[in-house]
Amino acid sequence: MKPDVEFAVWASDRQQRIESVLESALDAGAAATDTLAAAMRYATLGGGKRVRAILAYAAGELAAANPMDVDPAAAAVELIHAYSLVHDDLPAMDDDAVRRGKPSCHVAFGEATALLAGDALQALAFAQLAHAPVAPAKAVAILAEASGIRGMAAGQAADLAATGGSLSLVELESMHRLKTGALIRAATALGARAGRADESTLAALDTYAAAIGLAFQVVDDILDVEGSTATLGKTAGKDAARGKPTYVTTLGVDAAREHAAVLRAQAHAALAPLGARARRLAEIADWVALRRN
Amino acid sequence: MKPDVEFAVWASDRQQRIESVLESALDAGAAATDTLAAAMRYATLGGGKRVRAILAYAAGELAAANPMDVDPAAAAVELIHAYSLVHDDLPAMDDDAVRRGKPSCHVAFGEATALLAGDALQALAFAQLAHAPVAPAKAVAILAEASGIRGMAAGQAADLAATGGSLSLVELESMHRLKTGALIRAATALGARAGRADESTLAALDTYAAAIGLAFQVVDDILDVEGSTATLGKTAGKDAARGKPTYVTTLGVDAAREHAAVLRAQAHAALAPLGARARRLAEIADWVALRRN
Repeated sequence: MKPDVEFAVWASDRQQRIESVLESALDAGAAATDTLAAAMRYATLGGGKRVRAILAYAAGELAAANPMDVDPAAAAVELIHAYSLVHDDLPAMDDDAVRRGKPSCHVAFGEATALLAGDALQALAFAQLAHAPVAPAKAVAILAEASGIRGMAAGQAADLAATGGSLSLVELESMHRLKTGALIRAATALGARAGRADESTLAALDTYAAAIGLAFQVVDDILDVEGSTATLGKTAGKDAARGKPTYVTTLGVDAAREHAAVLRAQAHAALAPLGARARRLAEIADWVALRRN
Repeated sequence: MKPDVEFAVWASDRQQRIESVLESALDAGAAATDTLAAAMRYATLGGGKRVRAILAYAAGELAAANPMDVDPAAAAVELIHAYSLVHDDLPAMDDDAVRRGKPSCHVAFGEATALLAGDALQALAFAQLAHAPVAPAKAVAILAEASGIRGMAAGQAADLAATGGSLSLVELESMHRLKTGALIRAATALGARAGRADESTLAALDTYAAAIGLAFQVVDDILDVEGSTATLGKTAGKDAARGKPTYVTTLGVDAAREHAAVLRAQAHAALAPLGARARRLAEIADWVALRRN
């Protein structure tokens, strides 16, 4: 198989795996007939690139973890991501009616149910880690830090505050380090910690994940300008419409593309000391930086 | 000192303790100048009866726990409670403008910030337990279960679904067991587990806490009819105004009062096998059942 085909097969296998892990986590929660449970399933299953889960599995493979030991971490980061999208799409926030190619959760289920579904997805994320076989308390600490006031939530608040204004590149990166980067770093760290990784490996992975997190956002901003709603599965051009500062408004398209290339190179450089066992993570860097949707 | 005065002194001491524990937890989170951090502090500090924290401390004392070992549990349940109030007061939910005697969080900070503050408070709750000295993973599992799709969130969804209709006593109790009861049971269990409690003690405490949780709600419903906004610190009469089924609409005031007395007796009966070391918990049962605000 060609290397990129071989990676696509591997990634698709992990996407199927996380889908089934998330199915089980959601099924354990409640009766299928319940509206709240239906909203949680709707918001979580059947969509998304699963970048965070895939990073967790790849970091777990690097650390010789049993994939079953990575499942709770992979599910937890995807559940946090799913809840953040549900809340982010609410009218009080980004007011977005399309997500993953279908009506947003609050459009399908109403605002109150969407709000509660997000809340319950967050609790379910921590429940996954509580039952993780390796160092569950440390994992909870990492996820709580990444998703709370010093992580994702702070980034979303900064995003709100910046809407309608402009940001320097430094300010923009600082916002995205929190909003997207923190959870991507947590996904990688949690995956690696499900196996055996020494401190220098964890540090290298963190540098890698920080670069990947920013690259992901730069590419998102470029696609928001160049993509269509159909290929993206979410509303195209919405950042510009809402007056949000992006890498494209801050740097222009060409410099943004160059910046993504630099971040991709940083990610590869961070992996260099880890040798061949970092191959999947290197492939993910290319996937994230070169993706078209 | 008269017993009830002595209890009031003890309870006030624990209220001050949890206030300071919550202050530290929130300070560790972020710079004081940050709007999101300010909204989290506003929603959490300086108010509330702290019933959940007090239950955790009392259960901890019964189990000979070091109060410092109970602090994370007490903080975690109060943070979950605070987040649930912030989200519950949002226009998409109960749309309530007054909470703990002051403007609700979204009135003071805007809806988007209130939504994020609630989200970040939930993450902060789990962060407390991650650093708990005794069995942190088990504690996380208990709190996640109590606050998620099989606990508080499910109760809030049932509450939404019931608004405008009527419920049988069985349906009403089933809703409140989830909405209020699950977190009150978790508070008691987490406090006891910070010390040494055998399975039969934990089972007795759980029966006690389940009765207390319902008694709390019955009294809430009576006070909602009979109290004023000034004494309650939240909008009086709001349940009736919103067409919510309550113990008063389901049973009438007199039978509701009788029901509260029965639940109080059930709580005392559950404590009987535990002897004198359950004194604080017995006093809490009286406090909850006989309170005027």
